[in-house]
Amino acid sequence: MELNHKQQTHHNENHPSFKTKMKKLVEHKYFQPIVIGIILLNGLIIVAETYLTGNTVLLAIDKIIVWVFVIELLIKMIGLGFKGYFSDRWNHFDFLIVIGSLLFYSTPFVSVLRLIRVLRLIRMIPAIPALRKIIDSLMASIPALTGILGLSVLLFSIYAIIGTTFFSDVLPYEYFGSFHTSLFTLMQVVTFESWASQVARPIINEVPWAWVYFVTFIVIGALVILNLVVAVILSYLGQDDEAKREEQMDRLYKENQDLRNDIKEIKQLLMEKKA
Amino acid sequence: MELNHKQQTHHNENHPSFKTKMKKLVEHKYFQPIVIGIILLNGLIIVAETYLTGNTVLLAIDKIIVWVFVIELLIKMIGLGFKGYFSDRWNHFDFLIVIGSLLFYSTPFVSVLRLIRVLRLIRMIPAIPALRKIIDSLMASIPALTGILGLSVLLFSIYAIIGTTFFSDVLPYEYFGSFHTSLFTLMQVVTFESWASQVARPIINEVPWAWVYFVTFIVIGALVILNLVVAVILSYLGQDDEAKREEQMDRLYKENQDLRNDIKEIKQLLMEKKA
Amino acid sequence: MELNHKQQTHHNENHPSFKTKMKKLVEHKYFQPIVIGIILLNGLIIVAETYLTGNTVLLAIDKIIVWVFVIELLIKMIGLGFKGYFSDRWNHFDFLIVIGSLLFYSTPFVSVLRLIRVLRLIRMIPAIPALRKIIDSLMASIPALTGILGLSVLLFSIYAIIGTTFFSDVLPYEYFGSFHTSLFTLMQVVTFESWASQVARPIINEVPWAWVYFVTFIVIGALVILNLVVAVILSYLGQDDEAKREEQMDRLYKENQDLRNDIKEIKQLLMEKKA
Amino acid sequence: MELNHKQQTHHNENHPSFKTKMKKLVEHKYFQPIVIGIILLNGLIIVAETYLTGNTVLLAIDKIIVWVFVIELLIKMIGLGFKGYFSDRWNHFDFLIVIGSLLFYSTPFVSVLRLIRVLRLIRMIPAIPALRKIIDSLMASIPALTGILGLSVLLFSIYAIIGTTFFSDVLPYEYFGSFHTSLFTLMQVVTFESWASQVARPIINEVPWAWVYFVTFIVIGALVILNLVVAVILSYLGQDDEAKREEQMDRLYKENQDLRNDIKEIKQLLMEKKA
Repeated sequence: MELNHKQQTHHNENHPSFKTKMKKLVEHKYFQPIVIGIILLNGLIIVAETYLTGNTVLLAIDKIIVWVFVIELLIKMIGLGFKGYFSDRWNHFDFLIVIGSLLFYSTPFVSVLRLIRVLRLIRMIPAIPALRKIIDSLMASIPALTGILGLSVLLFSIYAIIGTTFFSDVLPYEYFGSFHTSLFTLMQVVTFESWASQVARPIINEVPWAWVYFVTFIVIGALVILNLVVAVILSYLGQDDEAKREEQMDRLYKENQDLRNDIKEIKQLLMEKKA
Repeated sequence: MELNHKQQTHHNENHPSFKTKMKKLVEHKYFQPIVIGIILLNGLIIVAETYLTGNTVLLAIDKIIVWVFVIELLIKMIGLGFKGYFSDRWNHFDFLIVIGSLLFYSTPFVSVLRLIRVLRLIRMIPAIPALRKIIDSLMASIPALTGILGLSVLLFSIYAIIGTTFFSDVLPYEYFGSFHTSLFTLMQVVTFESWASQVARPIINEVPWAWVYFVTFIVIGALVILNLVVAVILSYLGQDDEAKREEQMDRLYKENQDLRNDIKEIKQLLMEKKA
Repeated sequence: MELNHKQQTHHNENHPSFKTKMKKLVEHKYFQPIVIGIILLNGLIIVAETYLTGNTVLLAIDKIIVWVFVIELLIKMIGLGFKGYFSDRWNHFDFLIVIGSLLFYSTPFVSVLRLIRVLRLIRMIPAIPALRKIIDSLMASIPALTGILGLSVLLFSIYAIIGTTFFSDVLPYEYFGSFHTSLFTLMQVVTFESWASQVARPIINEVPWAWVYFVTFIVIGALVILNLVVAVILSYLGQDDEAKREEQMDRLYKENQDLRNDIKEIKQLLMEKKA
Repeated sequence: MELNHKQQTHHNENHPSFKTKMKKLVEHKYFQPIVIGIILLNGLIIVAETYLTGNTVLLAIDKIIVWVFVIELLIKMIGLGFKGYFSDRWNHFDFLIVIGSLLFYSTPFVSVLRLIRVLRLIRMIPAIPALRKIIDSLMASIPALTGILGLSVLLFSIYAIIGTTFFSDVLPYEYFGSFHTSLFTLMQVVTFESWASQVARPIINEVPWAWVYFVTFIVIGALVILNLVVAVILSYLGQDDEAKREEQMDRLYKENQDLRNDIKEIKQLLMEKKA
């Protein structure tokens, strides 16, 4: 078996397999920059197309770029192997976007095609490590936020139900007409956007106690958002700061350990002599 | 008496008392998830009712859920004992909501009934530990905020009185017409909502020095809110960060103590030899 | 002289001087709570007066409270001594407010009288330690903010001059008509209040490049405010956190010092024996 | 050569060269305060000119100040040497502003002249160390922000393209008419300015699914800005806090090192004795 392995290695050295070639290509230092360049070009083409809708040259370049992406995908899949390729979560997303681009180019769903064309720009994130890192650490902080997000959902639901129940007949019908409308209105209120001048004041004019509803929602909502912000800050501080301090402390502990060993040896030496 | 106790225990082993049964039920691993499920279902029913007002099926399910909550309450009260049940503050709230739901189902106060029906959703907070923890730590940070909250009340009162005294006759009467109206307007101003375009500019047109009033309120108000935010962040940082560092330091202190004891022993050994 | 002193002490024991009596009064545990209570009552009276303007009963109580404040001031001044009283900065403020209240009660400047009546409520801050502490630590963080405040003034000045120079002839005249108007408008823009819908969009319609002016101001302004917030947070963290860590480190350093002294002694013992 | 050097030094002592004189002037303790004073005066003149446009006295003073700045520039260039002067980046900026002021005083581009006149006030930043430090530390935190800034550009681009593609025909044409208009609108939305009342609601009325577009943009945008804020805070905390802790730890490490050396010596002493 060892001989067999040797043979194969030998064989590869002279005539490297197609897979090895592809792997070398993927790992080549210019491969990633070129991919990023093409995505950037893609972005420029799409922006240009918003000014020159239906320009055939731009559409042609766009089609070429899709095929370049398909080839990039194939190279990566062969180079990294099927398993290796899909072991990276971002590649799942990449795969869906590229396949989607291919599928919808021949279908009549123009809106979907347009949307997928734009979403192709998100490929920038896995391509550039700095962006990827931000999204990864954002994802890493989500578990710490589930509690506070659940609380937000509860808060919005309760206030939306109360709003719909009591203010649905009040004049500006578009604000609290139904449950989903109320949710959107509360989203507006929590961002402090015209909450008093356009939402609260007209309603308070007809339902005087409504000020309690709005003031409590503003205060509780602000507290919940403050908690969300603090949770995010703490999750980042934790990732960063703790690691460094832990390291420093570990060094101190280790040094202390060495010290104690030395002293124990001394003690033993003295004991021996005494004996 | 000891014998009596033994007898009772013996009795329980064969025929567990109703209380013990209830306690086992409360502590069963599926008890809490089922309660959470029912509260969620309750939420869906209430949301559905905002679209189909007066739907008899929904109202019937709602009534059943109230009775399920009453049974849950009784099980908990028997299982944990009267004292054990009320030792948890959240259960006070639970008790009021469930009893309130029962009482108002037969009274003609439709508004109160509707409100209590929605408030039943807050039962989600004590039921889910993650939510409960957030509210508890929010409550824990309130003592640290009393000073800054008191200052806010003072700030709002002083500006509301000044506003009412000097701007009550100025045209947009709804902003500073009376003390409570002024308080609401200041709430609007402190959230930066249309403070200049709709509140400040019309008043400054008639009372030129009013810009001092608004600019100082905006600046002081922002400072006070910034202090509130910092106080909340610090109270969280304090709970989290300090604990860990304290622990690390304690370990260092203790290790140092061990070191010193060893060295003292060595010193004593040497002294003895000298003598 | 010592005898003289003794005599005086003796004299005081039997017939305590008026000053000592006043001092005891000021330091009495009920003195401060009563003062706070009167200030609170004063607040209620002033709020009540906004609803019942010119009510003679309220005005009478208000006059009595002013005299109570004058008496409180005299007690404090005698009790703490003239120097002792003015050694506390807050008392300067107290003095001005109370004397001002007295002076303006007989003058025809109604507006000034009304303003001073409200400002009397600020006496709550020195009276309640929790509020006082917040203001003191706010004052303590101001030196750290001078740089960033200076930068804000520079930023506002430059943009106000540019705005006045280029947009003073553009339609909504009230926004950039003159330097001070521009400053107020920039204050509005930096709080994001209707900056686009009412200020920027009408101007951009006539002066297309104006978007650069607004976008750069929004971005730089937000950065400056972010820096202000961070500076405040750091100044608080510094006051709080650093102190504790410093203390822990000092303890460690001191323990280490003890250790080294012990070891040096051991070394010396061994050296002696060798010699 | 050494003799030559000595001679030169000797020569300087008696008849200091013009360059040395200039250097002394630049380093004189009143040089910088006078420069700051002139810049301040410049600011007052420019503000005064917004009220009295075309006032000849003000314009004359302004011209004199430009020449004072030119002289200051020459003194600095001679005193610090050509290389020494341009080794400081801020001087590049200073040079451009002063030369620009000179060049445009005789040209007919009134707007450019006016703009440069205002930009001269930015010279305040390099002149006052406190301001300079803030800008420098702001610049120092930019590298840490490239990732998050890149992400913002991507987010804005994607949403601007989607907005232009789907909402350009929808009624309020000025919001999503073209790519650059959409970018400005998104800037407005991300600051929460009238995002619902004036931008989102009219569009949702015609394109019901648009609420997804706005809500996701608000949520993602807020998250990205939150990340930006956290990144800035962390970069400051890192600069400040880490340095101090590092120092404390270094002292501890060094002390521990001394301890271990002492103990090693003791061990060696004991070993020797044993042998």
